[in-house]
Amino acid sequence: MPAKPSRILRADALNNRLRIVEAARETFAELGLDVPMSEIARRSGVGAATLYRRFPTKESLVTEAFTDQLAECVAVVDDAATDPDPWRGFCAVIEKVCALHAVDRGFTSAFLTAFPGALAFERERERAEGVFAGLIRRAQEAGRLRADFVLADLTLVLLANSGVAAGTGDAAPVASRRLMGYLLQSFRAEGAAPLPPPAPVGLDRAYGQQN
Amino acid sequence: MPAKPSRILRADALNNRLRIVEAARETFAELGLDVPMSEIARRSGVGAATLYRRFPTKESLVTEAFTDQLAECVAVVDDAATDPDPWRGFCAVIEKVCALHAVDRGFTSAFLTAFPGALAFERERERAEGVFAGLIRRAQEAGRLRADFVLADLTLVLLANSGVAAGTGDAAPVASRRLMGYLLQSFRAEGAAPLPPPAPVGLDRAYGQQN
Repeated sequence: MPAKPSRILRADALNNRLRIVEAARETFAELGLDVPMSEIARRSGVGAATLYRRFPTKESLVTEAFTDQLAECVAVVDDAATDPDPWRGFCAVIEKVCALHAVDRGFTSAFLTAFPGALAFERERERAEGVFAGLIRRAQEAGRLRADFVLADLTLVLLANSGVAAGTGDAAPVASRRLMGYLLQSFRAEGAAPLPPPAPVGLDRAYGQQN
Repeated sequence: MPAKPSRILRADALNNRLRIVEAARETFAELGLDVPMSEIARRSGVGAATLYRRFPTKESLVTEAFTDQLAECVAVVDDAATDPDPWRGFCAVIEKVCALHAVDRGFTSAFLTAFPGALAFERERERAEGVFAGLIRRAQEAGRLRADFVLADLTLVLLANSGVAAGTGDAAPVASRRLMGYLLQSFRAEGAAPLPPPAPVGLDRAYGQQN
């Protein structure tokens, strides 16, 4: 088998793949995950056949497009978990993850969608969820985080943040910080008053499955 | 002029108008305001020409579709303003308006969009905004609402609520109540800690203009 044509082919294929992923990332960020595959093909300048050969399902494209952002979120959680003050760690996760999400409209949906076919993506999210659950427990034991805060409330925080980000355009980072300022005050154990019951919304059950 | 055919024509036209507005309300509630006019024509079963004859702009259709909901919100604000306890009135507005918005995806966008051509709609919203601003001031003077709460924070509350409602499906009413429970605690003057600065987002500036 002659080496050169094969290498050129591989370089072309890689190039197409990068263009698709970059276009997908931009398109999801701007319009959300509901955007049709044809729009991503159009923006990346590749044909629909090429797009579907590289990414047979939207799920495969979404998880590829958001792998870096997921890694960034997971790093925030891992880093916060090493803070000797678990309440400070808890606040850092909320603030930093919401700041990341506020600039990328597609990421919150990606983060909160179940992707049964994307095992590596799912496994990383689940691991981070476990680390954050430990942080919640320790911040509660330290008497700083209110006892009735549950993991499902993180889903609410992310969805609330995404609604604010989607509706405030260039002001999204400022608006997101203000909202998180309010919410973090309400999460303090000190002065906590009774709350309506939590919503049954897990991190992977907020949105329908994307296929 | 013979009376009968003219009356039939008017009845037909009225019927079309009602079908269009009903289809628009359902479509906006399900898909948001970005849905194309062609989809509303399809769902209402009228031709595009008929749709545009009745509603030359999307703005005219949006304001017609949400007039009843706006009236309901305005009634909530007017009613709360008569409460001798301004903090209880303030909380009632947040809770009731967010409960109304949680079941209708289109309404938050409609409520937060500027409609320069729809004077009656704009005027009603502005009047309600003024009444609510008075309620804020009185609840602050009573020492119950934190002094740094501003009207723009209501925009954040509505957008956060809309993000939660959009992402939680059937659980939206429960999720919305939980989020409002947290936010109302953070709005209390008692125990209020410093906050990040407010976002420059007025009630009519959160979304771009719809035309």
